Amino acid sequence: MLARRIERLTSSLVRDILAVAQQPGVISFAGGLPASEALLSLDLAALPADVVKSALQYGPSEGETQLRELIAQRMQAIGLDCSAAQVLILNGSQQGIDLVSKLMIDEGTPVLVEEPAYLAALQSFRLLGADLRTLPIADGVDLKALAERLPEVTMAYLTPTFQNPSGYCYSQAERQAVAALLDTHGTCLFEDDPYRELAYDTPAPAPLVSHLTSAPWVYQGSFSKTLAPGLRLGYLIAHPDLMPHLVRLKQAADLHSNRLSQLIVTQILANDQLDPHLAAVLPLYRQRRDAMANALATHLSPYATWSLPSGGLFFWVKLNTVDDTLALMRAALAQKLAIMPGVAFMASNQDDGAIRLNFSHANPEQIQIGIARLAQILRDF
Amino acid sequence: MLARRIERLTSSLVRDILAVAQQPGVISFAGGLPASEALLSLDLAALPADVVKSALQYGPSEGETQLRELIAQRMQAIGLDCSAAQVLILNGSQQGIDLVSKLMIDEGTPVLVEEPAYLAALQSFRLLGADLRTLPIADGVDLKALAERLPEVTMAYLTPTFQNPSGYCYSQAERQAVAALLDTHGTCLFEDDPYRELAYDTPAPAPLVSHLTSAPWVYQGSFSKTLAPGLRLGYLIAHPDLMPHLVRLKQAADLHSNRLSQLIVTQILANDQLDPHLAAVLPLYRQRRDAMANALATHLSPYATWSLPSGGLFFWVKLNTVDDTLALMRAALAQKLAIMPGVAFMASNQDDGAIRLNFSHANPEQIQIGIARLAQILRDF
Repeated sequence: MLARRIERLTSSLVRDILAVAQQPGVISFAGGLPASEALLSLDLAALPADVVKSALQYGPSEGETQLRELIAQRMQAIGLDCSAAQVLILNGSQQGIDLVSKLMIDEGTPVLVEEPAYLAALQSFRLLGADLRTLPIADGVDLKALAERLPEVTMAYLTPTFQNPSGYCYSQAERQAVAALLDTHGTCLFEDDPYRELAYDTPAPAPLVSHLTSAPWVYQGSFSKTLAPGLRLGYLIAHPDLMPHLVRLKQAADLHSNRLSQLIVTQILANDQLDPHLAAVLPLYRQRRDAMANALATHLSPYATWSLPSGGLFFWVKLNTVDDTLALMRAALAQKLAIMPGVAFMASNQDDGAIRLNFSHANPEQIQIGIARLAQILRDF
Repeated sequence: MLARRIERLTSSLVRDILAVAQQPGVISFAGGLPASEALLSLDLAALPADVVKSALQYGPSEGETQLRELIAQRMQAIGLDCSAAQVLILNGSQQGIDLVSKLMIDEGTPVLVEEPAYLAALQSFRLLGADLRTLPIADGVDLKALAERLPEVTMAYLTPTFQNPSGYCYSQAERQAVAALLDTHGTCLFEDDPYRELAYDTPAPAPLVSHLTSAPWVYQGSFSKTLAPGLRLGYLIAHPDLMPHLVRLKQAADLHSNRLSQLIVTQILANDQLDPHLAAVLPLYRQRRDAMANALATHLSPYATWSLPSGGLFFWVKLNTVDDTLALMRAALAQKLAIMPGVAFMASNQDDGAIRLNFSHANPEQIQIGIARLAQILRDF
């Protein structure tokens, strides 16, 4: 007899699609994988031998002291007032979602999520039994809906910067208005911020949590999109009242994060190598974003509308003619093209005919071919 | 407003003691840390560059294919009939406890644990709301109690091989009898087996799960005690019916385990380096076990009884004169000696005057001094 939550444990559509997408000959716009060319160039031989040796023993649940300090410094520089004592190193930021779910969600706990929202967060919240309420953001943050729903919910999970899947970035004014409402109602904000550094036009506005004055909050970031996902390294920064609980939850989850990865990222941050790496990588992503924008304009104008994302990894494309994006996904896979159906990102399970297209993994030539193929699939659909 | 489970989230006594134990001048028998001298000698420069590069991208939630195959082969060799498809790579075996807790435990779910039992497992089960029932094992497995309690419980969590904290190792006959009872009642067995390879006298008997014919089961092992805890690498092997749920829970917890660590351990297993490493390490641990046995005989005979552990990392010492082992722990810390109070390992919270002494981390000279100091503390207590 299994726990009741297992009935709510759905397979990840992303995961299933990614398995197909990795087959030879498939052009994939489905995942959120960094470009192979953009991954960190890792020189393991350059790591100090004595530090590597010390990293083999058990370590602190909170994470390595120097790494926590370096992350706190980086966050202070973008306007988030925090200390190293508020930083918890994660085995990737998916783990932050698991820990915050455990911290906040009982069966029936009302949680506000964006519509659309990050799929794996919806899965984690549902697994713990959350009662999901939605905040429309596709046409800007619906502040009226936010004001109506905040009194009903315990936590709001928001991705204000280059959101997955919509690509939307809350304006400075929206951040201030949302923060004011959260403070008014004392609602806990869980801000997920993995795409901040992938800004192609102008730097991202300061985190939403930096505008809060009294509401409790957890902020999280990741090195998966900036350095390498295989390192499985992310971090959260929490309101001091929440931090002791999160450290204990981390300890119960896996004692502590991988120390080699922590060591690698510590060296990169301490040697000021992250920003030069990003400066080298961003033109590649910008080029691919623009390649997809051009291909969409050439091939998809009759069938769809979209906005140019100013950061992140995704276009959110609203199709005029499709009301079953799961069926479209299957039709595309049959033509060796992988896309993500928008319905997967909807807490409401409503299919409004949108799809998510990743532009970071395929190269510009594949993007051109893939979007042309998508147009043909739409004509045949 | 936090989730109800947070009220059940206790700090780990081990963690708090370890913080004190790491202060200079303290002799620590408190933790379960491998000896520094016994840790893997890690040559990162020897890892194939192309494999390191490929390990930077996202990987499969189940773990690396080759590593899963190598682990399945090792398990088959000790009598556990399994395939690589049943192997799930973990971020340390603490993560297996978290995943199986999520799989099996609702608020109020009755779970059988040994008395005494592994502290961090008790914490995880309690966090999810388990109703813990106990199986006495200090004087051998109480089969009568097992037969009485199995009909009441959903899962039994057992550590049959060199148990933490008692050092007890179920005999072959006990394993068969316990397996028969589990099969009769169809109770899920969660077998935790991190100490198997640390056998100082004779090889450990085959895993208990290998004797099951029909009951569902999860078995888990770890590379923390054999190679290095800082790698955070463990694995579980599950009944085919349970595996799909566990893979999804792993995915929701952190997408997948660290790929560098998986790569390092894959190389070690593929190159047949684990067994020679163990052959080099075991004499060191055997020497320390024997040093502690001698010191106990010299200094503690008037105050305590104990058995010689044939494997693992701990002596379980029953004190004649103490009924508050937490108070004893504090008195010892004041004399710069760290020990673990037995009450921390009791699901019943009963203090029967036992303490756990680790013999792997301190060297023989420190062991001698520390046990003499403990005798003096007992005289003064």
